[in-house]
Amino acid sequence: MASTMYKAWLQNHHVEQPELREALARWSGSIVASVHTEVLDTAVKELALGIKQLYGEKPTVSKVPQSETFIYVGVADQLDKSFGYLDKSEIPRVGQEGYILKHVVREQHSILAVLGETDRGALYGVFHLLRLMNMGVQLEHLHIVERPRNQLRMINQWDNADGTIERGYAGHSIFFNENQIVEDMTRIKDYARLLASVGINAIAINNVNVNEVETAFISEEQLPAVAKLADVFRSYGIRLYISIHFASPMELGGLSSADPLLPEVREWWKMTAACIYDHIPDFGGFLVKADSEHRPGPFAYGRDHAEGANMLAEALEPFGGIVIWRCFVYNCMQDWRDRSTDRARAAYDHFKPLDGSFHDNVVLQVKNGPMDFQVREPVSPLLGAMNQTNQMIEFQITQEYTGQQRHLCYLIPQWKEVLEFDTHAKGKGSYVKHIGDGTLFGMKISGYAAVSNIGDDENWTGHTLAQANLHGYGRLVWNPDLTAEEIAEEWIRLTFGNEEQVVRTVADMLLASWHIYEQYTAPLGVGWMVAPNHHYGPDVDGYEYSRWGTYHFADREGIGVDRTDKSGTGYAGQYFSPNREMYNQLSSCPDELLLFFHHVPYTHKLQSGQTVIQHIYETRFTGAERAEWLIQQWTSLEGKIDPERYEQVLERLQEQAEHAKEWRDVINTYFYRKSGIADEKGRTIYR
Amino acid sequence: MASTMYKAWLQNHHVEQPELREALARWSGSIVASVHTEVLDTAVKELALGIKQLYGEKPTVSKVPQSETFIYVGVADQLDKSFGYLDKSEIPRVGQEGYILKHVVREQHSILAVLGETDRGALYGVFHLLRLMNMGVQLEHLHIVERPRNQLRMINQWDNADGTIERGYAGHSIFFNENQIVEDMTRIKDYARLLASVGINAIAINNVNVNEVETAFISEEQLPAVAKLADVFRSYGIRLYISIHFASPMELGGLSSADPLLPEVREWWKMTAACIYDHIPDFGGFLVKADSEHRPGPFAYGRDHAEGANMLAEALEPFGGIVIWRCFVYNCMQDWRDRSTDRARAAYDHFKPLDGSFHDNVVLQVKNGPMDFQVREPVSPLLGAMNQTNQMIEFQITQEYTGQQRHLCYLIPQWKEVLEFDTHAKGKGSYVKHIGDGTLFGMKISGYAAVSNIGDDENWTGHTLAQANLHGYGRLVWNPDLTAEEIAEEWIRLTFGNEEQVVRTVADMLLASWHIYEQYTAPLGVGWMVAPNHHYGPDVDGYEYSRWGTYHFADREGIGVDRTDKSGTGYAGQYFSPNREMYNQLSSCPDELLLFFHHVPYTHKLQSGQTVIQHIYETRFTGAERAEWLIQQWTSLEGKIDPERYEQVLERLQEQAEHAKEWRDVINTYFYRKSGIADEKGRTIYR
Repeated sequence: MASTMYKAWLQNHHVEQPELREALARWSGSIVASVHTEVLDTAVKELALGIKQLYGEKPTVSKVPQSETFIYVGVADQLDKSFGYLDKSEIPRVGQEGYILKHVVREQHSILAVLGETDRGALYGVFHLLRLMNMGVQLEHLHIVERPRNQLRMINQWDNADGTIERGYAGHSIFFNENQIVEDMTRIKDYARLLASVGINAIAINNVNVNEVETAFISEEQLPAVAKLADVFRSYGIRLYISIHFASPMELGGLSSADPLLPEVREWWKMTAACIYDHIPDFGGFLVKADSEHRPGPFAYGRDHAEGANMLAEALEPFGGIVIWRCFVYNCMQDWRDRSTDRARAAYDHFKPLDGSFHDNVVLQVKNGPMDFQVREPVSPLLGAMNQTNQMIEFQITQEYTGQQRHLCYLIPQWKEVLEFDTHAKGKGSYVKHIGDGTLFGMKISGYAAVSNIGDDENWTGHTLAQANLHGYGRLVWNPDLTAEEIAEEWIRLTFGNEEQVVRTVADMLLASWHIYEQYTAPLGVGWMVAPNHHYGPDVDGYEYSRWGTYHFADREGIGVDRTDKSGTGYAGQYFSPNREMYNQLSSCPDELLLFFHHVPYTHKLQSGQTVIQHIYETRFTGAERAEWLIQQWTSLEGKIDPERYEQVLERLQEQAEHAKEWRDVINTYFYRKSGIADEKGRTIYR
Repeated sequence: MASTMYKAWLQNHHVEQPELREALARWSGSIVASVHTEVLDTAVKELALGIKQLYGEKPTVSKVPQSETFIYVGVADQLDKSFGYLDKSEIPRVGQEGYILKHVVREQHSILAVLGETDRGALYGVFHLLRLMNMGVQLEHLHIVERPRNQLRMINQWDNADGTIERGYAGHSIFFNENQIVEDMTRIKDYARLLASVGINAIAINNVNVNEVETAFISEEQLPAVAKLADVFRSYGIRLYISIHFASPMELGGLSSADPLLPEVREWWKMTAACIYDHIPDFGGFLVKADSEHRPGPFAYGRDHAEGANMLAEALEPFGGIVIWRCFVYNCMQDWRDRSTDRARAAYDHFKPLDGSFHDNVVLQVKNGPMDFQVREPVSPLLGAMNQTNQMIEFQITQEYTGQQRHLCYLIPQWKEVLEFDTHAKGKGSYVKHIGDGTLFGMKISGYAAVSNIGDDENWTGHTLAQANLHGYGRLVWNPDLTAEEIAEEWIRLTFGNEEQVVRTVADMLLASWHIYEQYTAPLGVGWMVAPNHHYGPDVDGYEYSRWGTYHFADREGIGVDRTDKSGTGYAGQYFSPNREMYNQLSSCPDELLLFFHHVPYTHKLQSGQTVIQHIYETRFTGAERAEWLIQQWTSLEGKIDPERYEQVLERLQEQAEHAKEWRDVINTYFYRKSGIADEKGRTIYR
């Protein structure tokens, strides 16, 4: 039997309360499903399993009603034949992935209908219904018409064939081991369930840094094994993508070049695409990291990103596949002495000039910020800057720079801020979420990708509470109008049950955690200050004299990066007005991004009224205290959470609190030594 | 045919000059050796090979003279029988490892005699004779009586069974591969030649950090393979030692404890020692790193170092084996906030109280400085502090903190300074070299160990000029009264030939290189400032907030560690007077160690007259310029050095010069940002 850690948010806790059991009883006896498809079968199985876990008895499953009351799971095109009296007028509103949840009373029947236009819609409807059942929502008179707002809702695995995971903090890969795709698919199927339950519909199974073994995933030899993975995900409505090596024609094909304009290279990719689709008819496409951090790409042949991406796009186009081309391109051999180069500018500078030159089955994958998933950065100015090019947005669920799943850092509030950012690309109201859903410029392909945070740890995510980030990502990109509070509450109820004290306490913890983490780590949007390579723990100068373009420029007078148009790198000018002016002007630049855009004296007064140096001290002290507060909150729940998860989380929170003190002291001492300015309140800063 | 890189200082360049050939001709025809032992056979073979390479013809080897002129290689106890007319009165002066080189004319014979009391002495005599021949020294009327000043002249390999080398910068291990001892001993034999040629007589074959596989080297199963290594070294007069795992009775013996006072543990070690000597009758003994950097040791059982070492000593004693116990013991989990703990004090604090409690077949191996092989540190105050305990001195040939064999750093001048340091342990004139040779306190065992710098790179040492450090170590510990200049010149002549421009130029480079490296790296004895873990390249704060006890405490006012008795950690008080006072007083503390002993303002005036900050800038600028000067010196030799070695060295020097600029700029910028003080000469310091 799976542990509570393992079940994550698919607990389906046994319902004990009499009135809730009674309400559930009506719907727990019978499921009717008149049609069979692989995904619809999955939907019915999940529903039956969920009800069994919730109620204790397994419902019957039949093709035709065998009782007066039942749940009907079906797809629109079969409706007439089976249940002509079900109203199908709303079906066009749900699209290819939406559903209707509706309680219908007709003649002698009381029917709880889960209807999709497609089987995938029905599957999502089933998971929605199970959520409602878990949360004790009244199902009588239910009437929900729901569809996902975004097209691509993708997960990127950074798993390597050798079983390691780049920036993985939850054990080894569940996909690969010792350069082989695993044979036992049990855990992968359980992962597919988790993903489908929150609406994920696409997955790239291997790291964007593609090594030798993964390069061969698109070879005739390896495709049968990859196809088995695709089968598992397909049964949960998820399409499989592969991260490819741009120089595959050389590595695999024995060609002497990978020049995207060479006929033999183009031919090689076309043959390869055909071969892939022979094995995986619904293959999603390629994810590509090219000419970035020493990965090969079109630059080697004097070609640009569009020429590279379009070649791949042409190969995939006949089969309906797409190319996802990452925009994380910058000079990673920068000289720290060179103040004119600004890594933050790089994605925009590289891609903006190519607007309009990409094929329409290419989509550019843009990280949420211009740097690299820091605890705080501005929204990437590339988002919205290209009005003739498909764009999707990349988040990082795995907590590389946000505590590595040893610290609690619930990221939904951060992502929510990104989605609500107004780019002004088409005037006021040009929110990032309307780039994500493709409506701002009417794009053919759009959506979201995020780097997964799971591994083979029993609890999937290292820190049990980090499961909330995976859940929340799926829910948020399904519907960006959900609030972080709503998403958090749902996750807690599904994961730990409906006891109000648990719900309120854990919600408080989750919703405070990003700010707490920010409070004791790099201040005011300046970023980094972490130990090189592994990125865990404080090292203020760790990247200061490096080639990575990630500096804070702290000296004895002040700190920050001047990215203004007037005296700095001009990065601020990549934004549309009035964002450009907001960031350019010291008076209007938001405090939390001040040091990202401006170099200021330690004595500069923030909009909060505090000086920069006092803010640094103040937030470090508060942050470390708040990390202790997280422990207090959690321990107040002792006895209300099963011991296994209680202890696991407690241990992580204790480590976090200790480590928060280390952050506090290192940062405070660093700036005290540099500024010579004491804390106004006389708290301990080590010399 | 071996490359010039590979042959290192055993080139035996073919002699071209007519008058030199003529002088050599006399001695190139015949070798007489009336006795056979394994080592004497080695000596004869080396002599015959050397003459063949030098002169072009192989000499005859016979038991009795077959010509009027010959070289005689022999040992004292056979002298009477063979050549009664050879004077043996000087033999008692050469001891167990010395020799007489003497030209004797008797009756019809002209004899160049190489005489040892032992065969090892004769072997060293042969290598000495070959050196003379290489350098074109007149052999007529030769009369040299020579013996090594030091007893143990040891090499420590930090090789791991998996083939990696801890702090190795010249490729993989020549001893181990994939957890096996290599089968082909060719390269190991060539290494033994190199070592014997400079007088090394002991080698510990595995890393002091002993992992699982190496732990089993003392097992019945592994000893036959280890014995084969011992055989190779024995034929060159070198005894084999093994680094052992203190918890071997548990790891190998299945005991539940490794408590050194438990009878079953003591019995296990005795049985193990007996087993080792069954396989290796002349086994040297154990090298032990215990209770240091997480290695197990006696502390776990509430026992002290003496109890741990003595247990092992008792096991080895019946067979004449010894225990070499390392004193590199300190708290590697220090809190950087804690200014009262001082890692520099640790070795003294741990071991001084145990003086007199070690058995007389235990020798303590003490690193030359109190920290860890920095480019500059004071001599360890433990040296001389124990007058009832055997001590030996540990150097590091492998350039962990001194440029990793990518930078040229000839270490003999540094070691020479150590040996000439007057500890005042028994009053004026108590030089470290008299601790090394055991005479200061009349110790039974004494000598030197050094961490090897070789691997399987074609040139052994990564940087071809780094061969000089291995050669120089052997020569210096053979005779500490040799000057660095003499040793360097000898190495150059043997390695590159006798052309005066080459000799002078390379000597200038070698002799300047340590100071050059110091000039652009950590200033004024403060140490570290390197990137964590791999220790290559500048990172001023890399270890500043770490647990390693290695800090510089730079703030906006000043820098340095207060180790004085009055206001600091009291480390200075571990020295004998007047060293204690010299270091305690700012006015007498040598500039080059100022920041090791004192925390001073940047504006503090050094004895040189410069301020600390200006000294930092000045030396960084000069150091980087001098790194360029090394290139100029080397390129002036183009055509005079074979192209293979010329290019290899040039490439390294170019990398060094580039990297020296990185050091210069990072350090200068760091201190400019912190101090706000500009360079007096207005040179470029990046903001």
